[in-house]
Amino acid sequence: MNLYAVIMAGGSGTRFWPASRQRRPKQLLTLFGQGSLLQQTVARLAPLAPPQRVLVVTGQAHAADVAAQLPQVPASQVLAEPLPRNTAPAAGLAAAWVARRDPEAVCLVLPADQIITQESLFIDTLRRAVELAQAEEVLVTLGLSPRYPATGFGYIECGRVLDSAQPQVCAVQAFHEKPDLATAQGYLASGRHLWNSGMFVWRARVLLEEIQRHLPELAAGLAELALALGVPEQEAALARVYPRLPSISVDHGVLERSARLRVVRADFGWSDVGSWEAMAELWPPDETGNACQDGPVLAIEAQGNLVSAQGRLAALLGVSGLVAVVTDDVLLIMPKERSQEVKRFVEMLKERGQDQLI
Amino acid sequence: MNLYAVIMAGGSGTRFWPASRQRRPKQLLTLFGQGSLLQQTVARLAPLAPPQRVLVVTGQAHAADVAAQLPQVPASQVLAEPLPRNTAPAAGLAAAWVARRDPEAVCLVLPADQIITQESLFIDTLRRAVELAQAEEVLVTLGLSPRYPATGFGYIECGRVLDSAQPQVCAVQAFHEKPDLATAQGYLASGRHLWNSGMFVWRARVLLEEIQRHLPELAAGLAELALALGVPEQEAALARVYPRLPSISVDHGVLERSARLRVVRADFGWSDVGSWEAMAELWPPDETGNACQDGPVLAIEAQGNLVSAQGRLAALLGVSGLVAVVTDDVLLIMPKERSQEVKRFVEMLKERGQDQLI
Repeated sequence: MNLYAVIMAGGSGTRFWPASRQRRPKQLLTLFGQGSLLQQTVARLAPLAPPQRVLVVTGQAHAADVAAQLPQVPASQVLAEPLPRNTAPAAGLAAAWVARRDPEAVCLVLPADQIITQESLFIDTLRRAVELAQAEEVLVTLGLSPRYPATGFGYIECGRVLDSAQPQVCAVQAFHEKPDLATAQGYLASGRHLWNSGMFVWRARVLLEEIQRHLPELAAGLAELALALGVPEQEAALARVYPRLPSISVDHGVLERSARLRVVRADFGWSDVGSWEAMAELWPPDETGNACQDGPVLAIEAQGNLVSAQGRLAALLGVSGLVAVVTDDVLLIMPKERSQEVKRFVEMLKERGQDQLI
Repeated sequence: MNLYAVIMAGGSGTRFWPASRQRRPKQLLTLFGQGSLLQQTVARLAPLAPPQRVLVVTGQAHAADVAAQLPQVPASQVLAEPLPRNTAPAAGLAAAWVARRDPEAVCLVLPADQIITQESLFIDTLRRAVELAQAEEVLVTLGLSPRYPATGFGYIECGRVLDSAQPQVCAVQAFHEKPDLATAQGYLASGRHLWNSGMFVWRARVLLEEIQRHLPELAAGLAELALALGVPEQEAALARVYPRLPSISVDHGVLERSARLRVVRADFGWSDVGSWEAMAELWPPDETGNACQDGPVLAIEAQGNLVSAQGRLAALLGVSGLVAVVTDDVLLIMPKERSQEVKRFVEMLKERGQDQLI
């Protein structure tokens, strides 16, 4: 059986500004542990897919940095999108690339910018999903057992268990958009609702068939592209075809419309690292709840702060619940609970034409 | 008439940590405008005392940096104290040095770490004090008209005006220690109480005579030192004699005991730059009251913060009244009104033996 890891590295998020920038999005940053999120994602998959079997789909602006961060991945396997078109075209492009080698090869499709803390459990879960994708012609999605009533994720509602020997594998009853808090609390209590993780497993051919069925316009574009993949015309073909592809997520465009679906319940430690606030779970807090990415903290009557300061000593006195980030050119300070608003700075800087800071 | 400026640069303050360090005290820092406080002090005096007539008394640990910052001051005029002994020995040492050249020369004695914003008024006031010290055998102290009921300064109570043509020159009624707030409010209302600025003008001989009268032990030490000043034995003599000198301020040890005193009322813009909070008066605030030493500020619902971040953009969201300081190795955050407590970090670091950070 052939297995490929497809890393979706198209993000250009502003939620980690000022650490993340247009030219240095989240997946290229070292936010936790050793190496960038992208490098950690590739390293983590090694037991299933060695670097020679890794495909990265990223934006043109980041392709060179991606290739530089992953010297062990063949350069031809960094596919550069000429413009962002959401995840359905990206996943389809990767499937088309894989299908030229082996249509029955299984693709592990994973975001480049997640943090997984229980790696062997993660690999076990993926193995189970791979077996499922091999055994049946299905699209497998990973659903994470919710740890709190999150309102920032979509949910997958589990249907019936198909094989009592594999209680963690279910049919999919429904997809639900990001809920309000009361709904999220209900989801958490139900035990049947899982966070939509953006991690998928399928055979290349099966995804392409489902795209043909539900997104024929995308399928036509991919068919045109397929002829050029891996040959010198690839870049020109992408530049010509990509702008015409529908901009839609693989969840909305394919999974939610498909009848060939499975969800595998996953329980490995996971974070989508959605904002600075999320780092509070990941950086080691001291006894006063102050967490620093990579430097020491000296706290005097200061609690629950989060600091990324390039290794500097964080001397905190009489402040609590703040996020403070120091980069080469910016000092950011805000309350943790307002972490999502950091994009307002990016908008302000864009308006002022201060592109070097965004 | 010979005139010398004596710059008292013995400070080793911790109130501007982390910008100030043991090896880089406040007077060597650029906190406001161009150049360090010491360099600005020397430059400001040029209309009265050119660099060739400047004497700096500083700690041994800082003598090399002082000399490097003041290349135009003759190296032999940077006098290094082998250990701190407060201001009476420092002022006496300078007077002894000056007296060897001209006992009747006038000394302008000034701290190295003040900020003066109305420089021509400052020079005019000093000129008046110099004339007074030439005309009479008196110790002249400069008293600043209080702008608010400060509890952090000592006060000079004015006595009678001696010459109605010079209403800003008074006898000294009394010296008062740092008052409580109610007392300070009374001082402010009285119109007769001035802040003790630490700026003095006297002839070298007159100060030495007053030291002889009120601090004979110091006078004996200075007599021993005088023989070695300006000759190769100077350093050895200082090392031998200085530890035996009484550690006392020139205010307590001489001025408060002297009968030959005048105070000149001064009204030039002045700050002793006593803490980070004091910089709020000196750095240009934007319309939201956020003040940054040398970088731009981007504020979203953020007011009254004070930032020193090595030229970085300060992006402030939903925070108010904070001090934030970034140096090469430290990020400090605290409420403005707790600026005085910054020394607690220095104490903690000292206890932990982290001398490289203090």
